[in-house]
Amino acid sequence: VRTPTDETHDSERRSFVSTANDPQGDFPIQNLPFGIFSRGKDTRKSAGVAIGDQIFDLRAAFGLGLLSVDIPDVFAEPTLNTLFALGRERLRELRKRIGDALDVGTSGEKTRRSAADLLVPMAQCVMHRPTSVPNYTDFYAGIHHAKAAGALLTPENPLPANYKWVPIAYHGRASSVQVGGGMVRRPIGQRPPSVEGGPPGFGPCERLDFELEMGFYVAGGNRLGDPITVSQAQEQIIGYSLLNDWSARDVQRWEMYPLGPFLSKSFATSVSPWVVTADALAPFRVPAMKRPEGILGH
Amino acid sequence: VRTPTDETHDSERRSFVSTANDPQGDFPIQNLPFGIFSRGKDTRKSAGVAIGDQIFDLRAAFGLGLLSVDIPDVFAEPTLNTLFALGRERLRELRKRIGDALDVGTSGEKTRRSAADLLVPMAQCVMHRPTSVPNYTDFYAGIHHAKAAGALLTPENPLPANYKWVPIAYHGRASSVQVGGGMVRRPIGQRPPSVEGGPPGFGPCERLDFELEMGFYVAGGNRLGDPITVSQAQEQIIGYSLLNDWSARDVQRWEMYPLGPFLSKSFATSVSPWVVTADALAPFRVPAMKRPEGILGH
Repeated sequence: VRTPTDETHDSERRSFVSTANDPQGDFPIQNLPFGIFSRGKDTRKSAGVAIGDQIFDLRAAFGLGLLSVDIPDVFAEPTLNTLFALGRERLRELRKRIGDALDVGTSGEKTRRSAADLLVPMAQCVMHRPTSVPNYTDFYAGIHHAKAAGALLTPENPLPANYKWVPIAYHGRASSVQVGGGMVRRPIGQRPPSVEGGPPGFGPCERLDFELEMGFYVAGGNRLGDPITVSQAQEQIIGYSLLNDWSARDVQRWEMYPLGPFLSKSFATSVSPWVVTADALAPFRVPAMKRPEGILGH
Repeated sequence: VRTPTDETHDSERRSFVSTANDPQGDFPIQNLPFGIFSRGKDTRKSAGVAIGDQIFDLRAAFGLGLLSVDIPDVFAEPTLNTLFALGRERLRELRKRIGDALDVGTSGEKTRRSAADLLVPMAQCVMHRPTSVPNYTDFYAGIHHAKAAGALLTPENPLPANYKWVPIAYHGRASSVQVGGGMVRRPIGQRPPSVEGGPPGFGPCERLDFELEMGFYVAGGNRLGDPITVSQAQEQIIGYSLLNDWSARDVQRWEMYPLGPFLSKSFATSVSPWVVTADALAPFRVPAMKRPEGILGH
C-alpha cells in the first residue's frame, strides 16, 4: 500500500521563504504542518502553517482570497478540530493551494506581494495546543518497547498473553493534554511501601520519566456504535505529531493494579504545536513489519 | 460536617405545579435538578429544571426577568458546563430564585401567569446529555463492591494491597458518555482463549453487563498542576447523577492486563439527563464510614 504522491511532494520544489529551503530545516515547502498560533501580545488565535522560520497565517490568506478551495472559513477558530473534521480529501486540496501560495515561482507571486500580512516570524508567536481533545488513548503499540518493559518485570515471559492479539491501551486524561514547551509540575503521590504490607510512601515523585511517542490525530470520527473498517481507517487519520507521555514511575508501580495507570500519567501529556498531515508523509510510507503469528480472522 | 440548609429544603414547601407535590414523585420543589432539553421537533437546546412532570425552561424564565440573580445568560448554551463553572455559591442563589418562581404561594404568582411559556410537559421533550465531557474517570470506590469483585478472582486476598491507601481508578472514554435511554450497540470483540496459549475467541460480547454507579460533576476545575485541597473539594463538586457503566466482561477479562479496561468499557457509558445539585442533597448528608486503618498523613 502506497499513498499516491503529487506536486506537493516534489523534492525539487522551493519556497520564496528562503529559510524553508535550508536542507537541515524542519519546515520545507514539502512539509506544511498545521498549528494554532497567536501573534505576540495579541491573544487572538489563528490557524497557521509552518514554513521555514515563519508562520503562514491561514486566516489572513483565506481572507485575501489566496486559497481558492471549497471549504468553509474555519481558520479563525481556536483549534484545528473543525478543519480536521473536513476530512483528508479536502485537506489535501488545501495543502495544494498552500504549496502554490508559498512556491518560489509565479504561483507564489500574489503571496509574496502580501507577505507582510501573511507571514509572521515564529519567534514572535505563541503556539497553542493545536486541537481540543475529546479523548486521548495511549497504545502499548511498539513490540520492542513492550518486550523491553516486560523483561524488567517478568523476564521469563516479557509479553502478556494478549499482546499479539488485541490492542493493549488505556485512556489517558484527555483534559491534561497540553502543548509542549510549557512548565510541567512534578506530581506528589504515593510510592510502593518499603515493607510488604506496610504503608506506602508519600511525597514528590522520585522517578519522573517520559516516553517519546507518536501522536495520531483522528479526523472527525464515527457515530458511537458505527464501526470503522480497516480499509476506511487510513482516511480517518488526518495527521501525526510528537508526544511526550510524562510518567511518575514510582506512583505508577503502586497504583496500577488492577485498573491500569491513573494519577501517574494524569498530570501532563505534551504534544507538538505542529500537526504533520498524513498526506505530507505519503512519500515515506513503508510496509508494516511482518507479523510472525498472523492475524486473527475477523 | 453538615452543609447548611435553607428555605429551598423545607419539606413543607409545595409547588403550584401539582404533579410536583406527589409524595412518590422524583421531582418535588425541593429537588430542582438541571438538564438540557429540546421541545418536540425543535432541535434548539435549552437548560431546564425538572418539576413534577414538567420542565421549567430556564432560558425563557431568564428572558422574562423571573430569575433576578447576578449570573450571565448561559441558559441558551447546549450544555450545562458554563453554568456549572459559575460555582456552587451562584448556583445556590439560582436554586433559591427557581424555588421561589415555582412556589405555590405568592412568590410563584408571576411564573404561574406565564406558565404556558415557562413550563413544558416532559413527555413532549427530548433530553440530551447534560454536559460536554472533557474527562471521565471511573473510581473503584465502594469497598463492598471491591471485595465482592476481588473475591471472585482471588478469594484468598480479595483487596489489592493499594486499595485502602490510594484511589484506584481509570479514565473511561470521555467521548462515549451519552444520555441514558438511547440505544447501546452490543460490542464485538476478543474473548479469552479457550485453550491456554491458544488464539482468543472473537464475536459479539457474550457477557454484557452494567454497573449502576453514581456520577459526580465537577464545577469548572483547577489549572493543571494547581492542587485542590481536601477542604476545597466540597465546593468543587456541583452535582450528582445516576450512571450506567456498561461493560463487556469477556472482552475485559482478556484485554485488561496490564493497562486496565479499555474497549470493554469504551462502547458506552450512560448518564441520567438530570443532574441533582450537591445543594439539593444537603439535608441527606451523613458522616462517611469510619476507616478502620486510618488515613495516610499527607
